[in-house]
Amino acid sequence: MNIISLTVWTLESHCFIVYTVLIICFIIFTMFHQNRMEASRNRIGAKKIAPVIVDGKDRDHNDDGDDTDFLVPAISEDTPHIPYRPKKRPMEEVLERCREYFELMATRRTVRSFSTEPIPQEVLDNIIKTAGTSPSGAHTEPWTFVVVQDPDIKQAIRGIVEEEEEQNYARRMSRQWVTDLKPFATNYNKPYLTEAPALILVFRQTHSWREDGKKRMHYYSEISVAIAAGILIAAIQYCGLVALTSTPLNCNSRLRSLLQRPTNERLELLLPVGRPHENTTVPDIQRKSLEEIMVRM
Amino acid sequence: MNIISLTVWTLESHCFIVYTVLIICFIIFTMFHQNRMEASRNRIGAKKIAPVIVDGKDRDHNDDGDDTDFLVPAISEDTPHIPYRPKKRPMEEVLERCREYFELMATRRTVRSFSTEPIPQEVLDNIIKTAGTSPSGAHTEPWTFVVVQDPDIKQAIRGIVEEEEEQNYARRMSRQWVTDLKPFATNYNKPYLTEAPALILVFRQTHSWREDGKKRMHYYSEISVAIAAGILIAAIQYCGLVALTSTPLNCNSRLRSLLQRPTNERLELLLPVGRPHENTTVPDIQRKSLEEIMVRM
Repeated sequence: MNIISLTVWTLESHCFIVYTVLIICFIIFTMFHQNRMEASRNRIGAKKIAPVIVDGKDRDHNDDGDDTDFLVPAISEDTPHIPYRPKKRPMEEVLERCREYFELMATRRTVRSFSTEPIPQEVLDNIIKTAGTSPSGAHTEPWTFVVVQDPDIKQAIRGIVEEEEEQNYARRMSRQWVTDLKPFATNYNKPYLTEAPALILVFRQTHSWREDGKKRMHYYSEISVAIAAGILIAAIQYCGLVALTSTPLNCNSRLRSLLQRPTNERLELLLPVGRPHENTTVPDIQRKSLEEIMVRM
Repeated sequence: MNIISLTVWTLESHCFIVYTVLIICFIIFTMFHQNRMEASRNRIGAKKIAPVIVDGKDRDHNDDGDDTDFLVPAISEDTPHIPYRPKKRPMEEVLERCREYFELMATRRTVRSFSTEPIPQEVLDNIIKTAGTSPSGAHTEPWTFVVVQDPDIKQAIRGIVEEEEEQNYARRMSRQWVTDLKPFATNYNKPYLTEAPALILVFRQTHSWREDGKKRMHYYSEISVAIAAGILIAAIQYCGLVALTSTPLNCNSRLRSLLQRPTNERLELLLPVGRPHENTTVPDIQRKSLEEIMVRM
């Protein structure tokens, strides 16, 4: 039997088997091709149109539709512009103030052990109002500050954070991360969450709604909220209190639910605030020098 | 012919067709099942193991390997803890200071028109040092502040930003976004980039290297850098200068290259700083009230 007649014989007498083999090849090819199309689509999407990246997420620049009649600015377009004449300080005073402000801020340290001494509501109101003076993308002010002083709610917050942190330290955080935190003597116990007289939970609004019912986009909401948090920390330091700047990992859903915040809000930071405990310690670490953080051109 | 014999006859004489139909059904079932598994995996992945999300990116908590001999904290583990005894202000003073600090920060406005009056280097040094007192994830201090006063470099920066902004306004930004910026009278012309005596470009270090050559992870680098920027803005306001907080869209690569920053740095913010132009105006907009931004519990 030569090759050709062998092939013909196989086809004639074993057509089922041949047919099955062909079908299986077809299935495998289809699945493989599907995967390649998927990967290829991802690469094209990332390069071709220079997508608008806002807060690390692609923005489809056509997502608001082409109907320009319906495009209404979040703030009225005919908002007048008014003169801005802030107090003009002589340069000697500018120099003196920038030195004294640095001296003040250089004494700030992150504190993990608090006195239980209560903070007057007016103090909390003022530091929150100060945070609210922060700039934000297109003046969207995408923040909500939840200030908790009620002992039961603080206890509930502590319960949630400690449960999640136990998982974080045991399983979710990389081993290197856990190691990098060792000098700070942190673990999943968070007694400061009930000791500190007030907890400030900083929520970011991913978007909101205008009076006409249209969605208001919150451009650069993550960077805006963190800038506001920096101003909050500056206010806390200026008036003579201390805080811990913490980012409770994987606690967003549970804390949002506990505090009855809407789904367009995400927890970004949790700051216990108060006076330091009389025995507070801090790790003896240094800050980088000016030359290490600044480049002059 | 009854149903049974009809079925048998079909199977016997048309087995090819039956077989093909069965195969096609199998293919369809497999593809459908694959899609369901994919969707199901996505839902489970979001809930069950709660992947470690750092700076919006999934962290594979095994990515540093299992070799714990090689895990060295970025800061020495036996760093001593020292007492922290900041100045204790009487509560009346705390109240007074938080009121005055709010009054100071409430007068801050974003400014887009600057006097060309130079700023002394010492002022710039101090406000950068103040920003450097910011807290950061695991004390990684993941920031570089590039301060540009050279007119040619400012001009080059302006050239790049204006080119990219022209594309942003014309093509990349959503129509709604462009509309939302109209009250601020912004467009792709950025004269303040050459008028302002100094530009502060805030770069974020995505990671760095330790002395032993190992990579240092920068946990929460985005939020850390933005908090530092908030403290920078507070310092600028305190000493009596003004700034614009801007996020130059799509300018990272070109500006990083111009300023010779390494690839582990990303441009986050660009702040022109100086005194306001004598004819500066600002949009007549209001800030949210305390009740709109604060929830008490």
